[in-house]
Amino acid sequence: MDPLSRIEQALNAAVSLAEGPGCPPLLAAAMRASVFPRGARIRSRLCLAVAYACGEDEPGVTDAAAAAVELLHCASLVHDDLPCFDDADTRRGRPSVHRAFGEPLAVLAGDALIVLAFQVLAEGAACAPVRLAQLVRVIGLGVGVPRGIVAGQAWECEKEANLAQYQREKTGALFAAATRAGAAASGADPEPWRGLGMRLGEAFQVADDIRDFVCSADELGKPAGQDTAHARPNAVAQLGLAGAIAWLDALAARAVASVPACQGQSDLRSHILTETGRLLPQGLVRQAA
Amino acid sequence: MDPLSRIEQALNAAVSLAEGPGCPPLLAAAMRASVFPRGARIRSRLCLAVAYACGEDEPGVTDAAAAAVELLHCASLVHDDLPCFDDADTRRGRPSVHRAFGEPLAVLAGDALIVLAFQVLAEGAACAPVRLAQLVRVIGLGVGVPRGIVAGQAWECEKEANLAQYQREKTGALFAAATRAGAAASGADPEPWRGLGMRLGEAFQVADDIRDFVCSADELGKPAGQDTAHARPNAVAQLGLAGAIAWLDALAARAVASVPACQGQSDLRSHILTETGRLLPQGLVRQAA
Repeated sequence: MDPLSRIEQALNAAVSLAEGPGCPPLLAAAMRASVFPRGARIRSRLCLAVAYACGEDEPGVTDAAAAAVELLHCASLVHDDLPCFDDADTRRGRPSVHRAFGEPLAVLAGDALIVLAFQVLAEGAACAPVRLAQLVRVIGLGVGVPRGIVAGQAWECEKEANLAQYQREKTGALFAAATRAGAAASGADPEPWRGLGMRLGEAFQVADDIRDFVCSADELGKPAGQDTAHARPNAVAQLGLAGAIAWLDALAARAVASVPACQGQSDLRSHILTETGRLLPQGLVRQAA
Repeated sequence: MDPLSRIEQALNAAVSLAEGPGCPPLLAAAMRASVFPRGARIRSRLCLAVAYACGEDEPGVTDAAAAAVELLHCASLVHDDLPCFDDADTRRGRPSVHRAFGEPLAVLAGDALIVLAFQVLAEGAACAPVRLAQLVRVIGLGVGVPRGIVAGQAWECEKEANLAQYQREKTGALFAAATRAGAAASGADPEPWRGLGMRLGEAFQVADDIRDFVCSADELGKPAGQDTAHARPNAVAQLGLAGAIAWLDALAARAVASVPACQGQSDLRSHILTETGRLLPQGLVRQAA
């Protein structure tokens, strides 16, 4: 099965838990709307690619790791869109969850998705409890305190924030969780995989800042120009457009160079080159060149 | 060490993670304000009592289980107090977290506490990975979908809700997680412990409904009369005050009778009798008698 179908299947199985007997129907619907239709699934595909490069031998554990990472990403989007943060009306070209279901259900859907990520790990990795312990640990680090995505988002509430730290936590931390979880799912040591994830996360965040600046809301499927509108720290404001594009290139090259030794190292490097090459609209890349 | 000191120590160690280098200081402060000063710690004390009755042999695992349960309870209070739910100004006699720190940090503190609960489990139970798998599973069930506290809270967003189901999920589910986690922390089968937790949760919810009806905001440390003000399903509205008190007595007796066979069964029964006897103000109990 191709990686994307595998991820959709794992996520569908996870969300189906919320649709089981006893769950309030609106909460189940809000959770499904938080996870589908799919975005790029970049983090979960990265997790699968690393697991494969590390000699995947427990596909059910890999599926659980990838699904958990993606569920946590979806939870963060739902909460980031809330009126008290971005107050976004749309996401992936559809009404945001709080616009479609109301604010209470958006808060609860996000909460339930966070819990569901750990439930999925406990079910899918129960057969490999030592790996489960690693997975809960590295994924928890990527999401929580002191340096996960929740901590990253909280820098928006501080009077002073360092752009690099903000981006490392808000985006890099979950990418690092994806690479470390991929390694842990295959029984490999997750620690050498942190650097790759952090670099990819930085690259992705810079690309996101650039897209927010140059793309229309239709192209993004969500409101555009949000960084400027909310005066948020971002790479285009700090480096200018050309500088941000050059920084993105450098980060992508560093990411490729930092793939740790593993049996699928060469294929993984190609995969990362392809993925980072897709982060910006092609017209913009040609124009910059 | 007495149970309460043990719990405060475990919770303090957990929250200290949020105060480590790199965490946004306001998020760390909001998390500490969500957990301290302490409430009654009923759920975590129940978890410890069950672990002890089951022949506790890994105190670090028990501590992690009890802290995780309490952190999740605290997270649910912070999110329940948000303007889109109860819009509560006070909690435990102090400003609620969103009043003290603003709504964005209240959302994030709740999110971070949910993640922290699983991080604490992964750290504290890494030495016993099979127990960890059970703990993540039973605690996830108590909090998430389809029948945990998040699902329970979501019934407030549905047009029709069954009072018994609403209370089973909103309160009973986390009490059941506390009893099951206590058993799992000691390496016992968690399944026989669900019934006790559900009965205690129902008893606690009925007591909470009664206190909300008869106590002042000063006595509660939070706004009073909220069930009536929000037209929420509650035991006093359904059964009248005397009926609700009688129901509470019956639930407490059933809980005591349902303690599963274990080496500390007799002591645990006494503990539960004492605890349920403390749920209502003594004046009210005398008056009802």
